[in-house]
Amino acid sequence: MATVKLLTDAEAEAIPEVRAVFDDIRATRKSDFVNNFWRGLANDPPALARVWGQLKSVMTGQTVLDPVVQEMIYIAVSTANTCGYCVHSHTAAARKKGMTPPQHAELLAIIALAAQTNHLATAMQLPTDPDFLVEG
Amino acid sequence: MATVKLLTDAEAEAIPEVRAVFDDIRATRKSDFVNNFWRGLANDPPALARVWGQLKSVMTGQTVLDPVVQEMIYIAVSTANTCGYCVHSHTAAARKKGMTPPQHAELLAIIALAAQTNHLATAMQLPTDPDFLVEG
Amino acid sequence: MATVKLLTDAEAEAIPEVRAVFDDIRATRKSDFVNNFWRGLANDPPALARVWGQLKSVMTGQTVLDPVVQEMIYIAVSTANTCGYCVHSHTAAARKKGMTPPQHAELLAIIALAAQTNHLATAMQLPTDPDFLVEG
Amino acid sequence: MATVKLLTDAEAEAIPEVRAVFDDIRATRKSDFVNNFWRGLANDPPALARVWGQLKSVMTGQTVLDPVVQEMIYIAVSTANTCGYCVHSHTAAARKKGMTPPQHAELLAIIALAAQTNHLATAMQLPTDPDFLVEG
Amino acid sequence: MATVKLLTDAEAEAIPEVRAVFDDIRATRKSDFVNNFWRGLANDPPALARVWGQLKSVMTGQTVLDPVVQEMIYIAVSTANTCGYCVHSHTAAARKKGMTPPQHAELLAIIALAAQTNHLATAMQLPTDPDFLVEG
Amino acid sequence: MATVKLLTDAEAEAIPEVRAVFDDIRATRKSDFVNNFWRGLANDPPALARVWGQLKSVMTGQTVLDPVVQEMIYIAVSTANTCGYCVHSHTAAARKKGMTPPQHAELLAIIALAAQTNHLATAMQLPTDPDFLVEG
Repeated sequence: MATVKLLTDAEAEAIPEVRAVFDDIRATRKSDFVNNFWRGLANDPPALARVWGQLKSVMTGQTVLDPVVQEMIYIAVSTANTCGYCVHSHTAAARKKGMTPPQHAELLAIIALAAQTNHLATAMQLPTDPDFLVEG
Repeated sequence: MATVKLLTDAEAEAIPEVRAVFDDIRATRKSDFVNNFWRGLANDPPALARVWGQLKSVMTGQTVLDPVVQEMIYIAVSTANTCGYCVHSHTAAARKKGMTPPQHAELLAIIALAAQTNHLATAMQLPTDPDFLVEG
Repeated sequence: MATVKLLTDAEAEAIPEVRAVFDDIRATRKSDFVNNFWRGLANDPPALARVWGQLKSVMTGQTVLDPVVQEMIYIAVSTANTCGYCVHSHTAAARKKGMTPPQHAELLAIIALAAQTNHLATAMQLPTDPDFLVEG
Repeated sequence: MATVKLLTDAEAEAIPEVRAVFDDIRATRKSDFVNNFWRGLANDPPALARVWGQLKSVMTGQTVLDPVVQEMIYIAVSTANTCGYCVHSHTAAARKKGMTPPQHAELLAIIALAAQTNHLATAMQLPTDPDFLVEG
Repeated sequence: MATVKLLTDAEAEAIPEVRAVFDDIRATRKSDFVNNFWRGLANDPPALARVWGQLKSVMTGQTVLDPVVQEMIYIAVSTANTCGYCVHSHTAAARKKGMTPPQHAELLAIIALAAQTNHLATAMQLPTDPDFLVEG
Repeated sequence: MATVKLLTDAEAEAIPEVRAVFDDIRATRKSDFVNNFWRGLANDPPALARVWGQLKSVMTGQTVLDPVVQEMIYIAVSTANTCGYCVHSHTAAARKKGMTPPQHAELLAIIALAAQTNHLATAMQLPTDPDFLVEG
């Protein structure tokens, strides 16, 4: 159904670069499950390594934000970009990391509010208040 | 420069419904500053009251998320929706509420990462993994 | 400031295909004013003729919708696509064609409401109700 | 399939706040049908009440626009925001309120035209013509 | 499942304007296959003729870009606009015209990179460098 | 005017990680000019190094696409994502690498066409034709 082939475990095993990334995904996440995103991206092994490396560095390195907060920001961007796959995968990830139903509800309320004021500000074509600007 | 008139303080004072909202904005924020968003929305007093009421309820009521986290989610949505005015106003708000430079940097890194994987997932048209689905 | 040159009247006069379209824009709109959109598009005379022809046909031919309604729909799309230039030009056009302040206010209220429910539906990844589907 | 549970009628009945909104939806629409949007939003009863209240006020209160026009604007925003669920639900609603096939066809023609000129204006990064600006 | 009826071959044959466009699509593409896009658009015969005419003129007339490059640009826009149907149809078209797996991989890598830097530039609200501007 | 400080050359020189990237940008581009994107991103030196590294690898490594084609794809994504800064910077880059006015005109024509058909496909909520699917 995708526009690219989704590599099976056997196919992934056969390409050393892909195998190394899949092994690292499993080790980092302490789970055998490798989701379709990586199976599709594996058609381009350097891209697979680059994107996984960036995700691992941003989301699991020496971070200042809480893992649940990180995933909520991810859901917010994915929703505004209308990526259905991403909304599903990061909502699942947020829940696994401890997002509670009230946190999820508040996240959705802020997304909805922001979408509304974003559209109003655009429809009014508002000039930015000087008070908001970072001093040069 | 906007597509609507931005009400001055004198004009806002003259409309009781608008005056009441502006007073509440000032009281809630403990600041005399009322930004252009509300001055533009004041052309439609019921909308002004409704949107301010929603924002006040979602952002300052009995919330479960930290105010800085709330503003970071707001920035994330505003960025993905490319609302320049909103990115400016909520980055300023986040700073006022205590967002540190490392938090801002990590927020931008997650937004950038999510934008990237959102576009990849869309370009690959990935089917959602069954594992991500909420059980019926 | 644009990424293309905006043709002056003198430059437009010198290219027969462009001149013909500019003349038709002026005649159709009963105004001497030709806005920047057409001056930029004039760098590609066939595109100028094609887009103007389509706009003229859709907006001023045998239409079933009221001209103000047409412009309100145009503003709605332009806002959701965050095209600042287009929001400005079509809000001005709607006003010229008779859009009243209460109509503008209601338009903005619907845009804001739709943006909000759009984001909520996307964040919840709702399955379409069978009742909504057109029967095959 | 959604990222939240869709409440059944029995589950909705059991929560007084949800029951009250569902009853009002049914009474306002003169129909027993409550679509998935509200069943998903019902996980957050205050959000359910707030969003329904706003929709009811904007779409069915003392409006200046025709109900079919309101729904066409809603479809325009939902299309530009690529909310599939919303395009389906509001196209169904517009038809129920009397949108004719020629009106639907013209709506789609304007959406398509606007999308095209939106992208052209953005690709050319056009400066706004001074004539379009609201006088201060 | 669509919001409009998808015309069957028999229905298309019965409407002369639609039949003429379908015949031209088949002749131009040297294939009997007419995809759902045209079957849906056929509900509005003038729109069908207009959009097909534009697509034929832009994509198959006296073009300066390679057909594979044209389709890659189409995929890029369709991805950023999150049109799943379009991503599928133009990826299939690009492959038919000769897009290789390494070209597809590089296309996705550029889309992903651009999405990332687009969001960063928006989040930082960068002023355009004077060096980038076209001289007046 | 940005939401972050744009580092001057003196400030960039003072941070070894930033200096190294700025030096590499200048060497790779054979130009002294470092545009605002990098000056803003330099507030987060690891992000600066990561994004520059990715851009350098994707755009200037062992690529299969022509540099002008790469930049045209970049412009296409940036336009659909309505990133004004990016449209400006990549249009300038494409010109520097040899994009001709007819190529630019055709690029804009394809972007405009795609935007139009994207919105039509979304408004019609078309099911993907089985012919477009990659065989499993």
